[in-house]
Amino acid sequence: MAELTKAPELCVQTWLNTDTALSLDDFREKVVALFVFQMLCPGCVQHSIPQAGRVHSLFDQNDVVVIGLHSVFEHHAAMTEVSLKAFLHEFQIEFPVAIDMPSGSVGDPIPKTMRAYGMGGTPTLILIDRQGYLRKQKMGYEQDLTVGAELMALIREP
Amino acid sequence: MAELTKAPELCVQTWLNTDTALSLDDFREKVVALFVFQMLCPGCVQHSIPQAGRVHSLFDQNDVVVIGLHSVFEHHAAMTEVSLKAFLHEFQIEFPVAIDMPSGSVGDPIPKTMRAYGMGGTPTLILIDRQGYLRKQKMGYEQDLTVGAELMALIREP
Amino acid sequence: MAELTKAPELCVQTWLNTDTALSLDDFREKVVALFVFQMLCPGCVQHSIPQAGRVHSLFDQNDVVVIGLHSVFEHHAAMTEVSLKAFLHEFQIEFPVAIDMPSGSVGDPIPKTMRAYGMGGTPTLILIDRQGYLRKQKMGYEQDLTVGAELMALIREP
Amino acid sequence: MAELTKAPELCVQTWLNTDTALSLDDFREKVVALFVFQMLCPGCVQHSIPQAGRVHSLFDQNDVVVIGLHSVFEHHAAMTEVSLKAFLHEFQIEFPVAIDMPSGSVGDPIPKTMRAYGMGGTPTLILIDRQGYLRKQKMGYEQDLTVGAELMALIREP
Repeated sequence: MAELTKAPELCVQTWLNTDTALSLDDFREKVVALFVFQMLCPGCVQHSIPQAGRVHSLFDQNDVVVIGLHSVFEHHAAMTEVSLKAFLHEFQIEFPVAIDMPSGSVGDPIPKTMRAYGMGGTPTLILIDRQGYLRKQKMGYEQDLTVGAELMALIREP
Repeated sequence: MAELTKAPELCVQTWLNTDTALSLDDFREKVVALFVFQMLCPGCVQHSIPQAGRVHSLFDQNDVVVIGLHSVFEHHAAMTEVSLKAFLHEFQIEFPVAIDMPSGSVGDPIPKTMRAYGMGGTPTLILIDRQGYLRKQKMGYEQDLTVGAELMALIREP
Repeated sequence: MAELTKAPELCVQTWLNTDTALSLDDFREKVVALFVFQMLCPGCVQHSIPQAGRVHSLFDQNDVVVIGLHSVFEHHAAMTEVSLKAFLHEFQIEFPVAIDMPSGSVGDPIPKTMRAYGMGGTPTLILIDRQGYLRKQKMGYEQDLTVGAELMALIREP
Repeated sequence: MAELTKAPELCVQTWLNTDTALSLDDFREKVVALFVFQMLCPGCVQHSIPQAGRVHSLFDQNDVVVIGLHSVFEHHAAMTEVSLKAFLHEFQIEFPVAIDMPSGSVGDPIPKTMRAYGMGGTPTLILIDRQGYLRKQKMGYEQDLTVGAELMALIREP
């Protein structure tokens, strides 16, 4: 366990579905399930986002905080904040969603949080433990049985 | 059959996935399967659009013409042409897609083709026979077995 | 069409879900959809039998006759008539089901109708036209869209 | 936690998929996931048995022992040992399966373990903790996310 690294802070342009800007520091003592997606990514829409909703419904919010991170690295003009808001409404997504901060460089399509974590695409599932350590980062779909077990393992850590 | 009505012409702002503007008149002698959708409508993304792809793959294009009609009646700013283009790319939609013409009236969110057909929402499936008559208009999802049978019935008409 | 062959008659040990023994001759003028299955074949239970139920529900019984054919070619002692009856009850199968006649030879596990058609396994879908000609024989699962279209094509033949 | 009760011992007629008869006592120190089913129960075949396979694949067998319990309470003649063996083979079930002991009374269709636990039907999921206490008994299908979380919670108990 000596190799655990702190989860990089989220670099967020805008928060949706929450009244206040959030920070990983706000969630210390809780497990964070970060579902990184793009609203026009088929695997996200069909599998990852529905899974995020199930996690949000099942676990006590004092144990697990579900956060959506909209990390747009392609088709930027197609996935704007106004489109994302409609998406969240239509797909009935109720947990907080952060819009990943664009790189700020013309030639760099990768937003800042995506780059800080070294993600390769979407969907990506990231689990952060109660002490803020990065415990899982996986691109693609992880089956529910695994996600349920891994979240509970983190919940039950001291 | 005395009551059959001609299918109203499509009123289209922009055509995608085709080099030339299309008209129902172009499809005389063929059956037209018109899949009316909004890119942020969950039932469209999960059920109707995949069905349109299956219809497009199964039937000979000399028999059945598959057309997507993007009829935005809510969240207009969220479902623009640039967003739709990215959606078509990401969901690998290869058949022609028409963007329904906005009403042109500030207070009227219903686009023109949607209004001409009196549609109640999306998804809607519309079948037009070889003579241009409107033969089916149904909101919601129609099972594949029914769609396959109905299309073949229209194909086999004189 | 010169090569069409008459569908071999069913060789049946017992009929279930019907008061009288049936024969393909009884169905002249109708299209026959024969779903060949084994009650312990996973692909049959998960895909083919539910599809048979959908076909039975959708089409007019004056057009399409749905018949289940239980062709046991393995685990014979496990798939007896008493087990099949319970299976039909539990899975709410309402169309007629024929038990394929065992070969009668100790060393031959293939029942007689299965052999007459040269089937390679289960599930197999067989379509027979209004004149009694064999028009389709396919092992494995055929998608609903195809089945709906093929049945309607046969219905619409003179 | 004062109300925890010891899980009643399994009363087994025959064990399959294991060389030796097993007992709950053999699993002390491990969590037991008992999937109670009937081979002709649609909900079992479609949902519960596949879930049992996923649990068996995911968890370390030093942590979680998966047991199938075939508790026949209807159609007894249809779900015999020989039929069950073929079912296990065809559905590729690899974990140990116990055949629940018949009541022994002519008028009582409920097998002994089913009665001891007071089960109302199949499928039923039973979880037993490392000390042998009954921690969950639920009829019907429990979603994977919940099962994964509950199993891990039991694994992480002292």
